Amino acid sequence: MQSVIDFIHTSRDRYISELKQYLAIPSISALPAHAGDVRKCAEWTAEEMRRIQLENVRLIDTPGNPVVYGEWLQAGPSAPTILFYGHYDVQPVDPVELWDSPPFEATVRDGELYARGSADDKGQVFMHFKAIEAHMKKAGRLPCNIKVLIEGEEEVGSKNLDPFVRANKDLLKADVVVISDSAMFDRGVPSICYSLRGLIYFQIDLRGTKSDLHSGVFGGAVANPAMVLAQMLAQMKDKGGRIKIPGFYDDVRPLLEEERASWRELPFNEKKYKKELGAPKLAGEKEYSVLERVWARPTFEVNGILGGFTGDGAKTVIPAVAMAKVSMRLVPNQDPDTIAQLFEAYVKKVAPKTVEVKVTRMHGGKPWITEYNNPYVQAAGRAIEKGFGKPPVFCREGGSIPVVSTFQEVLGVPAVLFGVGLPDENAHAPNERLDLSNFHNGVVSAAILYDEIRAIK
Amino acid sequence: MQSVIDFIHTSRDRYISELKQYLAIPSISALPAHAGDVRKCAEWTAEEMRRIQLENVRLIDTPGNPVVYGEWLQAGPSAPTILFYGHYDVQPVDPVELWDSPPFEATVRDGELYARGSADDKGQVFMHFKAIEAHMKKAGRLPCNIKVLIEGEEEVGSKNLDPFVRANKDLLKADVVVISDSAMFDRGVPSICYSLRGLIYFQIDLRGTKSDLHSGVFGGAVANPAMVLAQMLAQMKDKGGRIKIPGFYDDVRPLLEEERASWRELPFNEKKYKKELGAPKLAGEKEYSVLERVWARPTFEVNGILGGFTGDGAKTVIPAVAMAKVSMRLVPNQDPDTIAQLFEAYVKKVAPKTVEVKVTRMHGGKPWITEYNNPYVQAAGRAIEKGFGKPPVFCREGGSIPVVSTFQEVLGVPAVLFGVGLPDENAHAPNERLDLSNFHNGVVSAAILYDEIRAIK
Repeated sequence: MQSVIDFIHTSRDRYISELKQYLAIPSISALPAHAGDVRKCAEWTAEEMRRIQLENVRLIDTPGNPVVYGEWLQAGPSAPTILFYGHYDVQPVDPVELWDSPPFEATVRDGELYARGSADDKGQVFMHFKAIEAHMKKAGRLPCNIKVLIEGEEEVGSKNLDPFVRANKDLLKADVVVISDSAMFDRGVPSICYSLRGLIYFQIDLRGTKSDLHSGVFGGAVANPAMVLAQMLAQMKDKGGRIKIPGFYDDVRPLLEEERASWRELPFNEKKYKKELGAPKLAGEKEYSVLERVWARPTFEVNGILGGFTGDGAKTVIPAVAMAKVSMRLVPNQDPDTIAQLFEAYVKKVAPKTVEVKVTRMHGGKPWITEYNNPYVQAAGRAIEKGFGKPPVFCREGGSIPVVSTFQEVLGVPAVLFGVGLPDENAHAPNERLDLSNFHNGVVSAAILYDEIRAIK
Repeated sequence: MQSVIDFIHTSRDRYISELKQYLAIPSISALPAHAGDVRKCAEWTAEEMRRIQLENVRLIDTPGNPVVYGEWLQAGPSAPTILFYGHYDVQPVDPVELWDSPPFEATVRDGELYARGSADDKGQVFMHFKAIEAHMKKAGRLPCNIKVLIEGEEEVGSKNLDPFVRANKDLLKADVVVISDSAMFDRGVPSICYSLRGLIYFQIDLRGTKSDLHSGVFGGAVANPAMVLAQMLAQMKDKGGRIKIPGFYDDVRPLLEEERASWRELPFNEKKYKKELGAPKLAGEKEYSVLERVWARPTFEVNGILGGFTGDGAKTVIPAVAMAKVSMRLVPNQDPDTIAQLFEAYVKKVAPKTVEVKVTRMHGGKPWITEYNNPYVQAAGRAIEKGFGKPPVFCREGGSIPVVSTFQEVLGVPAVLFGVGLPDENAHAPNERLDLSNFHNGVVSAAILYDEIRAIK
C-alpha cells in the first residue's frame, strides 16, 4: 500500500494537467448546443477508464446522454465489489462575466483549481480514476472488484438513470455503492454523510368562482381562494415549526443520543450562519439544534404561492383561483406514499366547502440512511482518516439525491457518500473550484478505501 | 308640471336621435389616441348645455381632461341648489369583435339602445339635460337652482376631480349633490342607493433571507416567508368571516331593523346568485344575509398573493420574499385612517421576529351614507315613484365611488344616487346598452325631482 501512496504523492502535477484536459470539455447537459461536447466528454471518460486499465469499458446509450461503464473484476468472487457512481456532465456557466478565469480553462490560484466541473463532479470522479490507476500501476491489481458507472445527465435530473439501473441490476450488482459528489462539512473537517432526506412535492389549486370578482360588489358573500389557501396552509404547521398533519411524525426514526452528541461537537456557528443567510432570526423546532433540524427532521415548506393581482399598484379583485406549491422533506423511516396519503386526507379535512380543491402530486424521493456504524461507512471513515490525517465527522445532509435511494432500493446495498468538495466551492455558480489538497488527500483516501473495503468481507 | 311631462312624452324620438350624436363621439379617456375625441365630446357637452339654456357654460381646464360647467341660478337664493355630477368620458371598447353593432353607432334593438356610453354615463347625463330642457321650454324656468359639472376622467380614476372640487368650493356650493351614474337594483325594481362602502388597500412585503434558499439544505432552520404570510393572513379573519383585527368593528353603524326588513322584501334569489358566480357555496358572516354582507358589512380580502416559484413543475426553493395585496371595504362610520392604524398595529403583533415586514398603504376612500330618510333622498324616492309608476327600493351598494365621499367631505351636503341603469347593461363590457323605457321614465323622474327638491326648502 505504501508504494501506491508514494506513487500518488509523486504524481500530483501530472494529475492536475490531466484533470485540466477533462475540465476543458464543456459538457453542459442542460444546453442542446453542447450535445456534441457531452458526447465527447463521455468518450474522454471512457478513454481515461481504459488508460487506467479498467475492462469492458463502453458507452451505453440511453434515451438521453450515454452512461460510461467499466469494471475490474479480477479480485475474485470472495472479494467485495464496489459500484462507483459519478457524472461527467456539468452545469451551465452563466453569468459567464462573473467568472475570474474562463470556466473551461482550468486555472490554479491559491491552491484551488478553478473550472466548471472541478468540484461537481469531474474532479471527484477523476480522484477515483487516479486511485485506481495507482493500484494498477504499482500492484498490478485492485484490492477488490470495482464497477464504474459515470452518467451524463445528473445536472438535468438523472431521468434516464433510474430505468437504466432497474434494467441492469445484474450488471451493477455490488456489495456497496460509493459516490463522490458531495461536500465535506467544512474546510478542514472531512466528513461522511450517511443519511439524506426524501421529498414529496404537491401543487394545491383552489377555485372559488367562475371568474375574478369586483371586491366591492361581491366582497362579503363569497370565499376568497387566496385567503382560504392562507388559512389552509396555516393549519399545516404551527408557529413552533411542528407539522400538524395527523400521523406525520409516526414513522420518524428518533435521533440517537450519540448522533446528537457528536453533532454538538461540530464547528458550527449559529450566529455566522444566520448572518450569512441574512435572516433576522432563525426558525424551527426549538427542541432540536439547527443541524438536527436541517439533517434529521422533516419539514413542510411553501415553495410558491400565487393568486389574484400581483402587479404594481392596486386592483380591487377577489381572485377566482389561488395556487400553492408545497413540499415536505422526509426523514428515515417516513414513506413518501404514506405521507402523501396523510397530507391529501388532511387537505380535504381543512378545506371549506366554499372552494373547489385540487391536489396534484409531483415528484419526490425516499429518504435514505446507511447506519453510520455500517462496516462500509466505517471503512470509509478509516480511509478518510488516513488520507486527511484526521478522523471524519459522521453527518447527514438535508437535501435529497434521488439516485442514492434508487441504488439502495434496486440493488439493496449500502451506499457511502465519500465527498471531498467544500460547501463554498460554488458547485452551481460562477468560479466553481476544487481545493487541490483535498483532491490529493482524496486520491490517497480513495486508494485506501478500496483496501479497507477489501478487509471487510 | 303636467305640460313639462307631456312635452317629455312627445319628445321621445328626438331624444334618441340627439343622444345618438352624443354617443357617436368615441371619448375614451384611457387611450391617448382619443384625446381629440375627448375634447370634442367636452365641447359637444357644453354646446348641448347652452342649447338647453344653462348659463355661464364653459370648459374648465384641469391637468387632465377639461370639466364642463354650466348653471341656472335664477330660482333665487331662497330656492335650493342642486349640484348635478356626471361624466362624458367612456370605457375602451375592446374586444370590439364581441360587439353585435359598432360601439359608436348607437343602435336600437328590442327597446334597448346599444352603444358605448349609453348607460355609463352619457345616457344618464343626457336624461338630466332633457329634463332641464323640458322645464325651460314649457315653464321658461327651473323649479330650483342647478349647477352642472360633467367631468372627463371618471373612467380613469377621476384623479383631477378631487383637487378641482377642493379648489372650487364656492363655485360648486349647493344643498344637495345628484349623481346619475349607477344601476337600479334589478329590471322593474327602481331604486335609490343611499350608502357606499369605503376602502383601504395595503401591500404587505415579507423578507426571510437575503436570497432564495435550497429547501433541502436549509429547510427546518429558517422561516419561510410564504408560510409566515399565510399564517399572518389566517389571523386576519376567522373561518366564519369575522375580521379579527382588534377594534375593527368598534365604529360600525349597526344596521337598522327597518333597513334589514326592507331588504328582505327585495327580489333576491340566493341560489341563482351562487350559480351565476359559479361558487360551490357562498361564504361570509352567517348572521347577516347576502345583501347585508355586501352592502353594509366591512370585509377583509386578499386581492393578490405572490411568493417563490410559481411556474410549471416543481422547484424546491424556500422563497426569500413573499407579498400580499390586501384591502378592506369599510362601512359607515368606520374611518380609513383609524382602521389603517389598527391594521398596521395588528400586523406588527402577528408578525414573527423571523421575518422583516413592510406594510405600504395604497389608495382608499371613506364610506358614504346619506340617511335614507334624509329629505332629499325621500324627494328622489317620490320622483322615481311618479316617473316609474312604482316606489323605489332604498338600498346600498358594496362598491366605492370616491367622488361621492369627496362631495360629502368638501361640500358637506347630502348626495342622492339617482341611477337608472340596469345591473346587466354591460357598463364596462361589449354590447353596453340602455333600456329606453328606463331612460324615458328617468327623464320624467328627473324633471319631477327638481320640483320635489324645490318643495323641501
